[in-house]
Amino acid sequence: MNNWTLLYEDFKPSMESLREALCTLGNGYFATRGTSPESEADEIHYPGTYLAGGYNRLKTDIAGRVVENEDLVNMPNWLLTKFRPEGGDWFNLMTVDILSYRQELNMKEGILSRTVRFRDRQNRETTLIQRRFVHMANMHLAALEITIIPENWSGRIQILSAMDGTIINAGVERYKQLNSKHLAPVKSGKADNDIIYLLVETNQSHIRVAEAARTRVYIEGEQIEVERKPVEEPGYIAQEFFIEAVNNTPVTIEKIVSFYASKDFAISEPAQDAVEALRHTGNFKELFERHAMEWNHLWYKCDIQIADNDRTQMILRLHIFHMLQTVSRNSIDLDIGVPARGWHGEAYRGHIFWDELFIFPYLNLRIPVLTRALLLYRYRRLNRSRIAAQEAGFRGALYPWQSGSDGREETQQLHLNPKSGRWLPDNTHLQRHVNAAIAYNVWQYFETTEDLEFMATYGTEMILEIARFLSSLTSYNREIDRYEILGVMGPDEYHDKYPDAEKPGLNNNAYTNVMTVWVLRTAIKALNKLNPKRRYDLLEIIGLEKTEIGQWQDIIHKMKVVFHDDGIISQFEGYNELAEFDWDGYIKKYGDIQRLDRILEAEGDTTNRYKASKQADVLMLFYLFSAEELHELFKEMGYDFDPQIIPKNIEYYLKRCSNGSTLSNIVLSWVLARSDRTGSWNIFNKALESDISDIQGGTTHEGIHLGAMAGTVDILQQCYTGIAFCDEMLHLNPKIPEGLQRLMLKIKYRGNWFDINITPDALAITSSKERDIITKICFREKIYEIKPGDTLNFDIKV
Amino acid sequence: MNNWTLLYEDFKPSMESLREALCTLGNGYFATRGTSPESEADEIHYPGTYLAGGYNRLKTDIAGRVVENEDLVNMPNWLLTKFRPEGGDWFNLMTVDILSYRQELNMKEGILSRTVRFRDRQNRETTLIQRRFVHMANMHLAALEITIIPENWSGRIQILSAMDGTIINAGVERYKQLNSKHLAPVKSGKADNDIIYLLVETNQSHIRVAEAARTRVYIEGEQIEVERKPVEEPGYIAQEFFIEAVNNTPVTIEKIVSFYASKDFAISEPAQDAVEALRHTGNFKELFERHAMEWNHLWYKCDIQIADNDRTQMILRLHIFHMLQTVSRNSIDLDIGVPARGWHGEAYRGHIFWDELFIFPYLNLRIPVLTRALLLYRYRRLNRSRIAAQEAGFRGALYPWQSGSDGREETQQLHLNPKSGRWLPDNTHLQRHVNAAIAYNVWQYFETTEDLEFMATYGTEMILEIARFLSSLTSYNREIDRYEILGVMGPDEYHDKYPDAEKPGLNNNAYTNVMTVWVLRTAIKALNKLNPKRRYDLLEIIGLEKTEIGQWQDIIHKMKVVFHDDGIISQFEGYNELAEFDWDGYIKKYGDIQRLDRILEAEGDTTNRYKASKQADVLMLFYLFSAEELHELFKEMGYDFDPQIIPKNIEYYLKRCSNGSTLSNIVLSWVLARSDRTGSWNIFNKALESDISDIQGGTTHEGIHLGAMAGTVDILQQCYTGIAFCDEMLHLNPKIPEGLQRLMLKIKYRGNWFDINITPDALAITSSKERDIITKICFREKIYEIKPGDTLNFDIKV
Repeated sequence: MNNWTLLYEDFKPSMESLREALCTLGNGYFATRGTSPESEADEIHYPGTYLAGGYNRLKTDIAGRVVENEDLVNMPNWLLTKFRPEGGDWFNLMTVDILSYRQELNMKEGILSRTVRFRDRQNRETTLIQRRFVHMANMHLAALEITIIPENWSGRIQILSAMDGTIINAGVERYKQLNSKHLAPVKSGKADNDIIYLLVETNQSHIRVAEAARTRVYIEGEQIEVERKPVEEPGYIAQEFFIEAVNNTPVTIEKIVSFYASKDFAISEPAQDAVEALRHTGNFKELFERHAMEWNHLWYKCDIQIADNDRTQMILRLHIFHMLQTVSRNSIDLDIGVPARGWHGEAYRGHIFWDELFIFPYLNLRIPVLTRALLLYRYRRLNRSRIAAQEAGFRGALYPWQSGSDGREETQQLHLNPKSGRWLPDNTHLQRHVNAAIAYNVWQYFETTEDLEFMATYGTEMILEIARFLSSLTSYNREIDRYEILGVMGPDEYHDKYPDAEKPGLNNNAYTNVMTVWVLRTAIKALNKLNPKRRYDLLEIIGLEKTEIGQWQDIIHKMKVVFHDDGIISQFEGYNELAEFDWDGYIKKYGDIQRLDRILEAEGDTTNRYKASKQADVLMLFYLFSAEELHELFKEMGYDFDPQIIPKNIEYYLKRCSNGSTLSNIVLSWVLARSDRTGSWNIFNKALESDISDIQGGTTHEGIHLGAMAGTVDILQQCYTGIAFCDEMLHLNPKIPEGLQRLMLKIKYRGNWFDINITPDALAITSSKERDIITKICFREKIYEIKPGDTLNFDIKV
Repeated sequence: MNNWTLLYEDFKPSMESLREALCTLGNGYFATRGTSPESEADEIHYPGTYLAGGYNRLKTDIAGRVVENEDLVNMPNWLLTKFRPEGGDWFNLMTVDILSYRQELNMKEGILSRTVRFRDRQNRETTLIQRRFVHMANMHLAALEITIIPENWSGRIQILSAMDGTIINAGVERYKQLNSKHLAPVKSGKADNDIIYLLVETNQSHIRVAEAARTRVYIEGEQIEVERKPVEEPGYIAQEFFIEAVNNTPVTIEKIVSFYASKDFAISEPAQDAVEALRHTGNFKELFERHAMEWNHLWYKCDIQIADNDRTQMILRLHIFHMLQTVSRNSIDLDIGVPARGWHGEAYRGHIFWDELFIFPYLNLRIPVLTRALLLYRYRRLNRSRIAAQEAGFRGALYPWQSGSDGREETQQLHLNPKSGRWLPDNTHLQRHVNAAIAYNVWQYFETTEDLEFMATYGTEMILEIARFLSSLTSYNREIDRYEILGVMGPDEYHDKYPDAEKPGLNNNAYTNVMTVWVLRTAIKALNKLNPKRRYDLLEIIGLEKTEIGQWQDIIHKMKVVFHDDGIISQFEGYNELAEFDWDGYIKKYGDIQRLDRILEAEGDTTNRYKASKQADVLMLFYLFSAEELHELFKEMGYDFDPQIIPKNIEYYLKRCSNGSTLSNIVLSWVLARSDRTGSWNIFNKALESDISDIQGGTTHEGIHLGAMAGTVDILQQCYTGIAFCDEMLHLNPKIPEGLQRLMLKIKYRGNWFDINITPDALAITSSKERDIITKICFREKIYEIKPGDTLNFDIKV
């Protein structure tokens, strides 16, 4: 098995939509989906959203019906290229006899290709070879090449090379009631003999989206002229032409496409720029060379290598590949965060949640200039979040659970349970912990880059305003002399209120409370990093008084965390009073119970009644913090924290979790890494299968799960290596499972690159010479220094 | 005299357009001009361009007529607020008796105010107080407050609060033949009772521009309700209402305006966002407090203080004020460079030239995160510049002389001589030296910030591609075994070809040739700063071979520079053969001969025939480089360079320069600083007057000269202090003129702030503690080290 290639050697119509999601191509600006470019646009959709989601807003009227669903920025389907022997049927994989089939996603060079031999109803045998890529080095370009080889016939072939802006979003079954048509035609036309263009506009935001296509024909490598007939309808344009095909002589159709949007920088007008770009663009081969070179450079720093396990290696690369396709250098000038389902998945409509918490650790250590840009997505919405806090009666900045174009809360107010057909109130906006995730991301970026300029200009202000919001979320309980956080949701979406309660929200969610303490402490640290003048100015700007910081100290020392059963951290106050769930009974009855919430609701019951979690909640604490860090946090809060309770808590919650979120396995694998290496490795391998095997049975075709993909990579990167950043040191403490015989990776830390090589016995780390500074390395509580160019070796068996 | 205030205590209609330019308000995103908000829009124009220029393209057909002039992004005039006593005339400064008048631009707090007492034709006496600002801390907001105090009457006052998108660009007389109307109406309406909005779109680029205005009325500080009548025309919207005014009782109209464009980040749709912003915005006083705070913080780091000279201090601050209004933190997310005339001046249509060379040194040392963003304007146009190089037959990247939205060459092909009425070919696009300026700016940014991440990601690639272009611009002359650059223009625009030559361009312009050598050497230096892998990748990406770098070395050693008259660097080859110009005769005949080119052309002659320069050309070398640096450069080229020739060259060219460019005095003052301190100080003071006294007699009202403004500031900052950056050291060598008794400034160098205090006797420098690094300081060739928190003192008398 080639560990660089996702390969399918058969054609399975039932698997097409899953493969489509897995074989998506993109470059951080422009993504395209679809394994069947020859199909009609209305058979398989190619939504290819390209910009920050959330041009999408679901509103409900009083009766709870969906009344509005605004723009998700789409692009016209540029893949649509049909052919047929004159007088025959348009080629369609579903209606021909397939003699052989091979589809491969070559991740090393970022190219998708497919070779099909087929026989049509007239007994014509033909080989069809398709290749396509979305250019990694020039974000505005993509290319498709179709080669047709008649094997037992000659004759005229009719070709239609189109761009279709009449496409709709129909990839998610349960969104059917929402508006699916987001583009309105503006204009289209022929620019040159071989160049056509299409300009459309989004309905609500009026973003203009332009595509241009240059179609050329080659016979045996020689370009030939063809007579092109224009085909134009509102929002649709094509060129149609005939080619004289000769038996056994390959005919190649080359379609180079450019894509510009009105928000782009360095353009005059998108349609004009799209056409101009094609006038200065080479052929498929020339474009591909530069594209493959870019991937080659990317892989050098982004690959994570393991030994002796081709399938694991291949899936890891698939996950890295999807990350780099979703965000890359090309994303830097866009105003985007990282969407939960990539850009091409329609699920969650491109919204930004807290998944960045799982994604940024990988990017921070390789392309920090990218994370910096992605964090600015949040900074630009700081003002909007201040307004949200104010409107909700809090101080500081309240970032939304689901974030879109303008930073307001985009969470749906109702959601559909497909099992019961009922629209239910959605309280997930109460997941205030997204704010802690943002502060955490800012601080991790700083720890790994030492970018003081960023912190002084943007980062510290965000952390302070989040700290302020979280502190105003607490209330002081005089009776117990402790601070509490009432009426919120933790990450676990099975619990949004107390059983039988009217009001949504839970009290003292342990994850939220501990993260609040972490944020408050970090805010004070961040403030002290600033020079005194900037510190003074920033405090004046946001009107933060010393007394407020004094109150933070008080909250740090008196935050409430609830325990039960001798050392179990209660997921929230009252968790222990909930009923135990009949796991065995339900698994027997339903088989897959990942979406237990939907099952119970359809039965007239609710997950709120049970000790049953959709995903890790308390366990997130062990995911984000080491035992030492937790010990310190709990000590600050005035609680004893015996590291021995960690495995006890893991065991407790592991038994009570349905893993209804793909992020769950990541957390479980991670938290088991120290205590149960085999268990960790097994869950890691399960997490690896999340998308490639669509283990949720149908969610992957709605879009890959980027947080889970990044999470698996990060288990290798940070968990098994024990890499962590605090106190201005790089911490290392590998503990690798038996299944892993070697782990090799590169990370960029504070300006220098480090090569890290781990075997079951040894750890070696080598520093590059980029920045002339000494790096402090902490290995198992001892501090070492590494100079540029040096290598340190550690024995890790002991 | 208050050295923070530009004050006018009289009303001079003839000076209005000049004052309008000088009193422009802006915040780096949104600029507004106009001292007379009460006037009709068609009397005085308020163009207020807000985005990177160059949405503007002058094309000529074969007959040389102007056929197209594309968009200059304008904003609707939001200042338009008229009033009149019921039945009377709309208030107009030109038609009332002015009893007293006071207009002041308070630069400390960024507010413009005016108090007028006047008597109308009905003998009503009234005091009018206006205040306005463009918000520095919230780039989308501006505010206008008008207080009317009837002094001998009571009665109804009619108010009209409008936004006018039908404005035209008519500020530059000689552009009259160009299209002046750039905005098309889209929609307008009332959002809330007191909020109206206007949405317009640019003609060619289809950028949408939205403004919303919230108008409120206060009597003696109490908000009152008024009945508003809508007034709507295409591209124009207003609210009209009446107020009952009582003698001696102030009536205040508060107009808060928001401005959004479709290219903005973090918005949904500009009109919607403009309205939303106003719903969450406080009153004039609240907005102003935060605005003044921002200016206060800015001034702390941006002020340059001198002793005992209030007028000089005030003008210096005016220059700093205009820089910070043109580019600021608010500009970072925009895709802009720094335009030659600010955003509000219509001259040069917002295009970006080489003036950044004079502007960035100030920004680098205070807001490096801003310079970084401004350099990205160039990086984003690197690809377009590669195409330009290719199309012109060169390698690498050829940046345009005038740059706009999409980075193509925007230089007009013809220009008008208003003196002769003739349209003449414009060859200024041959000023290839703009490329050297860009490379210089990138390198200076790196020297002052040590931002390796920027260099690895963007900077080095730009420098290399420019080096490559400049090297391909050279041709090897076998006869003399030297490289030459033929057919270009230097900075001096009086010479664009040899007299009687058909083809434009000159050979071996000294400035261009020496800068080419500097760029090639810097490219090699920059390459060596990268880590080996990135270096390898970058060379592969741009296809730069070792042999090409080898050829650079050859060019460095064999570049030709022409000398004449024993040590005079010839401005270009053949300069010495030109006729001497009759300066006295022409001064006697014409008085002002700054635009000698126009005078001679109108006489049927040409400046190409004479040893006469519009501006410094050879002298630029002494401006950019120290004697030591020049010595090294010339040595590399195989020329002896005796530092004694510097004053000789200065004297020679000083005599042959008409100073037709405002940048000229900057260079002259700078190059004289070491040899003729009094002369330097006198020219510096002349340069200071460029705009405030409109010394070119009419060009300032077309827009301030930002390069010249920045240049004067930089003379204090870098020239009189002797601050320079090379070999990773901060060089200091003050030489201050007698007119200057004290000079105090702050600079940010490689992450730490330094306080610098210079008197005629002593230099003191103190380091902040932001970054824990030791800085090397070179004072008069000796190297010192300064630790965070330390102060070094030097005796500079000796």
